[in-house]
Amino acid sequence: MTMLKAQYSERGPIPQAVIDAVPFDHPVLSQGQALIAVLAAPINPSDVLMLTGQYGVLPPLPAVGGSEGVGRVLELGPDTQGPAIGQTVLLPAGAGTWASHVVAPAARLVPLPNEADPKQLAMLTVNPPTASLLLSEYADLQAGDWIMQNSANSGVGSYVVQLAKLRGLKTVNVVRRESAVAGVQALGGDVVLVDGDDLAERVKAATGGAAIKLGIDAVGGPATMRLAASLGEGASIVNYGALSGEPCVVSPRELVFRNISLKGFWLARWYRVTPPEQQFALLSQLAGLIAQGKLSTRIQATYDVSQIKEAVAAAAAGERAGKILITPTQG
Amino acid sequence: MTMLKAQYSERGPIPQAVIDAVPFDHPVLSQGQALIAVLAAPINPSDVLMLTGQYGVLPPLPAVGGSEGVGRVLELGPDTQGPAIGQTVLLPAGAGTWASHVVAPAARLVPLPNEADPKQLAMLTVNPPTASLLLSEYADLQAGDWIMQNSANSGVGSYVVQLAKLRGLKTVNVVRRESAVAGVQALGGDVVLVDGDDLAERVKAATGGAAIKLGIDAVGGPATMRLAASLGEGASIVNYGALSGEPCVVSPRELVFRNISLKGFWLARWYRVTPPEQQFALLSQLAGLIAQGKLSTRIQATYDVSQIKEAVAAAAAGERAGKILITPTQG
Repeated sequence: MTMLKAQYSERGPIPQAVIDAVPFDHPVLSQGQALIAVLAAPINPSDVLMLTGQYGVLPPLPAVGGSEGVGRVLELGPDTQGPAIGQTVLLPAGAGTWASHVVAPAARLVPLPNEADPKQLAMLTVNPPTASLLLSEYADLQAGDWIMQNSANSGVGSYVVQLAKLRGLKTVNVVRRESAVAGVQALGGDVVLVDGDDLAERVKAATGGAAIKLGIDAVGGPATMRLAASLGEGASIVNYGALSGEPCVVSPRELVFRNISLKGFWLARWYRVTPPEQQFALLSQLAGLIAQGKLSTRIQATYDVSQIKEAVAAAAAGERAGKILITPTQG
Repeated sequence: MTMLKAQYSERGPIPQAVIDAVPFDHPVLSQGQALIAVLAAPINPSDVLMLTGQYGVLPPLPAVGGSEGVGRVLELGPDTQGPAIGQTVLLPAGAGTWASHVVAPAARLVPLPNEADPKQLAMLTVNPPTASLLLSEYADLQAGDWIMQNSANSGVGSYVVQLAKLRGLKTVNVVRRESAVAGVQALGGDVVLVDGDDLAERVKAATGGAAIKLGIDAVGGPATMRLAASLGEGASIVNYGALSGEPCVVSPRELVFRNISLKGFWLARWYRVTPPEQQFALLSQLAGLIAQGKLSTRIQATYDVSQIKEAVAAAAAGERAGKILITPTQG
């Protein structure tokens, strides 16, 4: 059996230039370990930023790329309790998942529904809990309330639309190009607008002047300010990304006179400070929604580990119609 | 007795051009009213912004300038309960205080210590409670904790230094020019630095790497970002002004990876939503500190109401060594 992992030993501005698929030997398991055949692992924006060195925390080098994914248990180490051989499991976060096979502590494997699409389950650890926590931790929202987000056609953005709809919340969705509008409408976005200087007035017209309670910002720069100007008095903005590459800009007029506040969300901190049973409860709930087909994201293309350079280049490209996944062809 | 008030009937970019001292007749008091001889009334930055039209709320025109001050009760209306004739009182907020005399509801006059300096008491309503609330409402601070502010030599800034010291807090104070350093040190600022690109490193060196829990921002623009970068993980920034004329800028790196948050403070909202007895308690506490000489601010110059154009021009000038006050010469 050929085992492959996508490894990088340096960081650089062109992410696909620093990563390579390298073969490795069938590992010998110690007690407590499991060998998992990876079924699917996504390429997230944060993974690409780890290759370029622009992410907030960076693993020591050499490192295997990929921070989430699902697999099927192949082997357990000697005297090791764990999920049954053949069980679909969630890989531990940050496990270096762009590989045909991963060794992980058996006790940290979360069993997932075997019948669900592994490509959708592979994206369970990062984007769905991000979307869920953005909606639950920064405003007290009731069914019928309005929320607003930019980058609405992103991975997180599409989960925000779906989870908001399941909770009875109404969404104003901002995208950066006209061609992205239809996709967000198809997911169930109530209002979908292309970003621009008169955004606040168009939002007001589209919502009948509703007081929007929460703004979700993944763009930064003046887009944060346009979001702030569109929200109701006393609303919160939570930022979780900087797709514009620029710092967030918010006028004191919004902060001081309209009591708008700005916070940041980082999923890695949530995983660090939240008790495991609470993490498990949220992931189980989201896995259930994925298995029922109530929560999904569009997939643009899948690649084998051997095609890692093409896959990373596709993920780093600006215009995409969905996620890029590594789906290893088992040797 | 000649009565004068500083009135404006239009707004414009040169604040001293739109305001004039105009005489008015001795008013006839109704029941419940009091006539107060104004002793002192400051020119605050927000007052100047009301003349130029750049403030968040603007009174209907024509309006009398000035939003705080103290006076001495001269007359009470028929069958009116109120402070004794001759009592020093705080004028109601927003009363149009740049005048020799003001008519106000007797029930809203707060008696103040007759023996205290009326020029210092005249600034009780705006800057001291702003400084006090900036220190009390945005972080849980204990004696020994560090806080940081920019515009440390401003009116609010000097009260922040003094109130922090009274609470046993340590302060990092940022000013925009070298000539302002000595004044803030003389007030008791623990660390005083001139703003610049390497601010965070200089703060770290000066505090021994202390985790600063609160940042107070009156400047906006990149100064907000330099403040954010100097604070400890999880710290709050509260903005209460935009002396740079630019929106606040904060990098998602600080928001997301270091859990820095940004809010705004507006004293007018506090006065609107806070029960009167709680307002009275804070103002009484601060008036006591002023009467004891524990809280004061530097005064650059005083002017009669008839000199209102000179006074406003002096207040609007960038370089000042203290507050500008109107101290009417009673006719």
